[in-house]
Amino acid sequence: MDISDIRILSAGTALPGHPIDNAALARRFRMDSVWEQWVDAFVGTRSRHLSVDLQTGEVRQTLADLAVTAGHRALAGAGIDGADIDLVVMGTATPDTLMPATVNVVADRLGIDGVPTYQLQSGCAGAVQALDVARHMLWAGGSRTALVLAGDVSTKYFDLDLDLRKLPPAELVNVVLFGDGAGAAVLTSDPVPGSTALRGLLNRLTGKDRAPGHVLDWFGPADRLSERPGAREDFKAIEQHVPAMAAEVLAELLDRLAWRPTDVDYLLPPQLSGRMTARIVEQLALPVATEISCVEETGNNGNALPFLQLERVLAKMAPGDRALGIAIESSKWIKSGFALERV
Amino acid sequence: MDISDIRILSAGTALPGHPIDNAALARRFRMDSVWEQWVDAFVGTRSRHLSVDLQTGEVRQTLADLAVTAGHRALAGAGIDGADIDLVVMGTATPDTLMPATVNVVADRLGIDGVPTYQLQSGCAGAVQALDVARHMLWAGGSRTALVLAGDVSTKYFDLDLDLRKLPPAELVNVVLFGDGAGAAVLTSDPVPGSTALRGLLNRLTGKDRAPGHVLDWFGPADRLSERPGAREDFKAIEQHVPAMAAEVLAELLDRLAWRPTDVDYLLPPQLSGRMTARIVEQLALPVATEISCVEETGNNGNALPFLQLERVLAKMAPGDRALGIAIESSKWIKSGFALERV
Repeated sequence: MDISDIRILSAGTALPGHPIDNAALARRFRMDSVWEQWVDAFVGTRSRHLSVDLQTGEVRQTLADLAVTAGHRALAGAGIDGADIDLVVMGTATPDTLMPATVNVVADRLGIDGVPTYQLQSGCAGAVQALDVARHMLWAGGSRTALVLAGDVSTKYFDLDLDLRKLPPAELVNVVLFGDGAGAAVLTSDPVPGSTALRGLLNRLTGKDRAPGHVLDWFGPADRLSERPGAREDFKAIEQHVPAMAAEVLAELLDRLAWRPTDVDYLLPPQLSGRMTARIVEQLALPVATEISCVEETGNNGNALPFLQLERVLAKMAPGDRALGIAIESSKWIKSGFALERV
Repeated sequence: MDISDIRILSAGTALPGHPIDNAALARRFRMDSVWEQWVDAFVGTRSRHLSVDLQTGEVRQTLADLAVTAGHRALAGAGIDGADIDLVVMGTATPDTLMPATVNVVADRLGIDGVPTYQLQSGCAGAVQALDVARHMLWAGGSRTALVLAGDVSTKYFDLDLDLRKLPPAELVNVVLFGDGAGAAVLTSDPVPGSTALRGLLNRLTGKDRAPGHVLDWFGPADRLSERPGAREDFKAIEQHVPAMAAEVLAELLDRLAWRPTDVDYLLPPQLSGRMTARIVEQLALPVATEISCVEETGNNGNALPFLQLERVLAKMAPGDRALGIAIESSKWIKSGFALERV
């Protein structure tokens, strides 16, 4: 077999709690309706799911909790259980702990043991990177059935004590942009009829001499009183570069696969925010592709997003249908994407 | 070619500053000579290298700094430069930031761009996992020359304000056990004469229903005042399980490769501490293998260790020589190892 014949059998996802709309955020942080309208117009994200309880501050679901739920759903979708899995790969920017890697906690809770596990540390490209590592391992033949997981939980960054009126817009946007979630997919080296082939994949650092557009720092016990910020974003750079980078991923994937723009039935574009996604899709200008987006309702939950889109597109694809997914990581500027074909 | 014919061309490493001996630690933390003797006898680690300046608290070298130095040395050893690298894979438990992944900062500073990069989140098994991802990608043919990096920097956990006299032994040991460092290796799919083949590799979660033996937590801006501990270890469990797990890795690698115990010329055992390594090596009982260890002088610098051992063994191996490396991660109990042969 060729590596372009690795199959995706199923996908499953998990979002914590009910959607939190902009009005609920406004109430919690005592902001007015002008602020709500600013979020609607300039971010374009209407709701998000949060692991933290907005009223009590309690963390109700960890990344492992969400990934276990997503994993169960993906396994059920493929009609198998944990004992059938012989490889687990996860992508996340926000692991529950640094050790153990969250992938190992999730594997244990899914009844998976004695197999290779890998966890990719990455922002928005982590789900694609996890798919890439899994397909290479499956292709080499050491494993046959992989569970691929991805997700992010931002509770360690979601400060309920913030006074939003004192924040500049560049920091304010963080409160409304992000959400929490996880996704999973089952991949196999068996050419199962009626499954979806992962035809191609791109993961390419384009960071040479460029400042990071998004920095997520962390603190240990020796430096937790440090004054340095936990997160920094350069939204101007992101707005400037991400649409062009998305177009480059599209062109490169089409070229590699010898697909024409009219061959693409479904487009899974980057999901930074409702407004950014709309701008990106305009520029991609695929003639017949149906857009698969979720960020307006789910918020930007990082590495969960490609799997939220994957779950939706797998439910729609008919034999012969082709789909392209694109994820751009603004941290140190990574272009990533993947190509699917229902066979 | 077969995946067992991927070659290692060179290795390079970097340790920050001068070695800090137990007497220097005792002076800094105002401990007496009884404590020094306790460290010598019960930990068996005589010195370590630290990125933090013990007197000023200044962090002199980040993980990226050390990995760049190690990377330069590995590239020089292979007689190539960054522009020749078309794949970068890194393993660490302690990235400088969560985003960007440290691998991308290092790649940029080494002049590497436009290539796939991956960073594995893992404790002691991260270097082996990074080698594994790299060899699979090289074998698939999308890349030809990989830079593999690994290392850890514990400054975010090394609290210079600690009063060691108030710490129980289980926490005290953390202050003396760990060090900082990084390593790198150049791998290629070219069957270069006189290079070292990566004959086999093992990475296996064995965590089913077992409590983590080592937890490394992290804090975001929303929870940095949390009272939960930054690091927890179960040394009794580690002492009990790691020697047996190391023996299992040895047996499985020998079995897979059809090597006899007498075929192993060099053994790279787990490097938890001087004392633990000695106990592990006793149990492995390889009849003719020369032990390659460094932990007594370098301290336990996590994912740097396999590359510190690799650099030493590559300098010694003659054509036909075989070496086995073993790394055990106590976090959620991962068995890992690799097999080398000079061709």
